[in-house]
Amino acid sequence: MVMFYFRDGANYASVYTQSKIVSENIKWNLNIKSKKISSLIINTRNANAFTGSDGYKGLKEIAEEAALQLTKKQTEDEDFPKKISSNQVLFGCTGTIGEKYPTEKIKKNIPELIKKIKYTQNKFTWMKAALGIMTTDLQPKISMEECKIGNKNVKIYGIAKGSGMIFPNMATTLGYVFTDADLSNDILNKLLKKNINTTFNAISCDGDTSTNDMVSIFSTGKVKNSIINNINDKKIFSFDKALHSVLLNLSKRVVKDGEGATKFITINIVKSKSEKEARVIAFSIANSNLVKTAIAGEDPNWGRIIMAIGKSGVKIDLKKLAINFGGIKIIEKGQIFKYYKENEATNYMKSQSIDISVDLNMGSKSFTAYTMDLTKKYIEINADYRS
Amino acid sequence: MVMFYFRDGANYASVYTQSKIVSENIKWNLNIKSKKISSLIINTRNANAFTGSDGYKGLKEIAEEAALQLTKKQTEDEDFPKKISSNQVLFGCTGTIGEKYPTEKIKKNIPELIKKIKYTQNKFTWMKAALGIMTTDLQPKISMEECKIGNKNVKIYGIAKGSGMIFPNMATTLGYVFTDADLSNDILNKLLKKNINTTFNAISCDGDTSTNDMVSIFSTGKVKNSIINNINDKKIFSFDKALHSVLLNLSKRVVKDGEGATKFITINIVKSKSEKEARVIAFSIANSNLVKTAIAGEDPNWGRIIMAIGKSGVKIDLKKLAINFGGIKIIEKGQIFKYYKENEATNYMKSQSIDISVDLNMGSKSFTAYTMDLTKKYIEINADYRS
Repeated sequence: MVMFYFRDGANYASVYTQSKIVSENIKWNLNIKSKKISSLIINTRNANAFTGSDGYKGLKEIAEEAALQLTKKQTEDEDFPKKISSNQVLFGCTGTIGEKYPTEKIKKNIPELIKKIKYTQNKFTWMKAALGIMTTDLQPKISMEECKIGNKNVKIYGIAKGSGMIFPNMATTLGYVFTDADLSNDILNKLLKKNINTTFNAISCDGDTSTNDMVSIFSTGKVKNSIINNINDKKIFSFDKALHSVLLNLSKRVVKDGEGATKFITINIVKSKSEKEARVIAFSIANSNLVKTAIAGEDPNWGRIIMAIGKSGVKIDLKKLAINFGGIKIIEKGQIFKYYKENEATNYMKSQSIDISVDLNMGSKSFTAYTMDLTKKYIEINADYRS
Repeated sequence: MVMFYFRDGANYASVYTQSKIVSENIKWNLNIKSKKISSLIINTRNANAFTGSDGYKGLKEIAEEAALQLTKKQTEDEDFPKKISSNQVLFGCTGTIGEKYPTEKIKKNIPELIKKIKYTQNKFTWMKAALGIMTTDLQPKISMEECKIGNKNVKIYGIAKGSGMIFPNMATTLGYVFTDADLSNDILNKLLKKNINTTFNAISCDGDTSTNDMVSIFSTGKVKNSIINNINDKKIFSFDKALHSVLLNLSKRVVKDGEGATKFITINIVKSKSEKEARVIAFSIANSNLVKTAIAGEDPNWGRIIMAIGKSGVKIDLKKLAINFGGIKIIEKGQIFKYYKENEATNYMKSQSIDISVDLNMGSKSFTAYTMDLTKKYIEINADYRS
C-alpha cells in the first residue's frame, strides 16, 4: 500500500479505463465532487472490482478513517489546520478481481501509513512509492522532468505500474504524475487528455483492458507561477512538452516491462488520411499475435504486417504503400523493394528495439503505437501461475 | 495441388476474406462472370498475395491451359462436348505471401492433374482432396450430410483446411462444399451467406485474418430436384439445415486443429439486445489472450471473462449478468453465485471442451463463437519455425 498526502491539498485530473465494467474505486473517484484532493491511497492486492456495494462501502469507510486521521494530523502540524473530508480521498486499486475487498485490514493500516508521512522528499521516496505500487512488474517505473512556466521552474514527477498481474491477472495500468506547479483542475484535465492519447493510450501489451486503469495528475501549487487559463498560452508550452515526456517515458516503461517481453516494438503509421485511421492500423499491427510471435522469433516477416494492415478495415492504396523495418526498406510503392535483402532484415530483427514504419502516402496524419513481442514466457505467466 | 473438375459444369457461390488486402486469386475469382464453373484449382505453397500483376497474369495463363486441356477432355469423353473457357476456372491459393507465383510449375502440372481425374468418387477420394489442401493442419477436415429437397435425396460433401501456416504463416481458411442438388447461383449465394455467419464467421483462432480466406459451394445438378426460387421455400429447409451442419462441422474442426490448441472453447452469448452485440462480446472473449491463456492453464478465471465483456464496449446491465462454465453457475445477477465452489470449476477446466455461457438478460438474441486456448506451442509454431 502507498499513501500520498497533499498537505495543502492538490488540484487534480484523472483519466480512467474505457472498459464498460469498472472497479468500485473508479466509481468512487468519479463521484468525488471536491475541487481539491488531500490524499491518494493505492492498494495492490485487491482490484475492488466486481465486489458490488460492499466494495464501494469499504472505500467510504477507509476514506472516512483517512479523513479523520489526516484532520488530526492537520491540527498537530499546521498553524491554520483544515478539516479534511472523505470526499478528498482518491483511490487506486489493482489486484484480484471478485474477491471481497479487505476493508478492515486497510482501515487498520491507515494510522501507520500516516505516521510514516514525510514532508520532505527525495529520489529514494519516489523509488519507494514506485516500488510500492508494483504487482508483477519487474522494474519500478519513475520519470522526472524539469521545466518552466513563465519564469518559474517547476518539476514533474511520475510513477507508474503495469505489466499484467499473475493473480488473477489483468494488465492494470496505474500512472500518477505530481507537479509543484499551480494549475487549475480544468487546465490539468485538458493537458492530461491531450497528452494521454499519444502516451498511455498508445501502448498495448496484449490488447486486453483492465477494469481498473487510471492515470492522474496532481498539482500542489507550491510554485507560484503565473495563472494559466488556456492550454494554448505560450507560457504552458514547456510544461506541456515535459508532461508529454513524463507520460511517454512511463508508458514505454510499462510496455518494456510487459509480461514475457524480450523486444520493444514501435509502430509508426505515417502519411495517413486521418489520425484515427493511422491509430486503427497501428493497433491492428500492435495487437496481432502473428506479428508479435514473428518478432519474438526474430523473423522479418513483413507478410504478417501486410495481413494486419489488411484486416484493420482501413482502405489503403496498395500502390502507394511503403514499409520499413528500422532503416531497411522492405516495401516501396506496394512492391518488394528491389534491393531488399532478407539477411539484412534478419540481422536487424536481432535488435532489442524494433521500429516498424508503415507509410500510406495518402495524407499528412500519423500515429505511433508501442508494444512488445509475444513469447512463451507470456503464456507461462498467464496460464501456469494460478492453477 | 488439388483440382476439381465439374464434368457438366456447376453452379456456385463464394464468400471471401474481409481483409482490405486480398490475394490475386480472390481478385480473379471476383472477376469471373461465367454462370457455371468447370474447375476449382487449389495450390498450397504460394498464397499469390502481394505478387502484383504478375501473380494475376499467372492465374490467367494457368486458367487458359486448364481450359484448353479440359476442352480436349470433353471431346474425348463426352457425346456432346462443350468448350470450356478460362472464365470457368476458380482458384484457391494458400501459402507464402509476397513470393513470386510459380506459374510455370503449376501450368506444367495441369495435364498430369487432368490425367488423374476420376468420374467416380468415394470416401477415399474426399480424404485425398482434404489431405491435398492441408498446410500446417494436423488433421484432414471432411464433413458429409444427406438430406432431401422435396422427395429427392441429395448429398452435401465438404472439405476444409485451416490452422495457420508456418511459412510464412497466416491462418488461411479454405472451405469447399459440393452438392449433387440442382440449385441456382442465387439460391446457393443466399444459403451460403445465411449460414456462414454462424459457422466459418463464428470461429477465431488468433483474431488474425488472412488475405486468402475463401469458402465456396458448388452444385452439380445431377439430382433433378424441384426448382427452388426462394430460400424460404419449405422444400429447401432440410438442405439448409444440412448445409449449416456441414459448415459448422468443418469450421469447428478448423478451430480444434488450431495452432497449438489443447482445448476447444465454445462461447455462448445469450439474451442479448441484438445479435451484433452478442457477436461483439463473443469475439471480445474469444480473441482475448488473457482468457485463452487462463483456459490453457485450466484456471476458472472468470475475472478475465468479465474483463473481456467490459472491454467489448457493449453496454450491459451488470445486475442482470449471469455466467456459467459448463453446467457450473459462477455469476448470477451480477454477483458471485452463493454456492459457487472454485474446486468444482477447477475440475471442469480439465475438460477438453470448455463451454462458457454469458447471459445478459437484456433481450432475446444470441451468438455462439468457437475458439481454442493459447499455448506455448502456438508461440513455438509462429515464432520459432522460420528463423
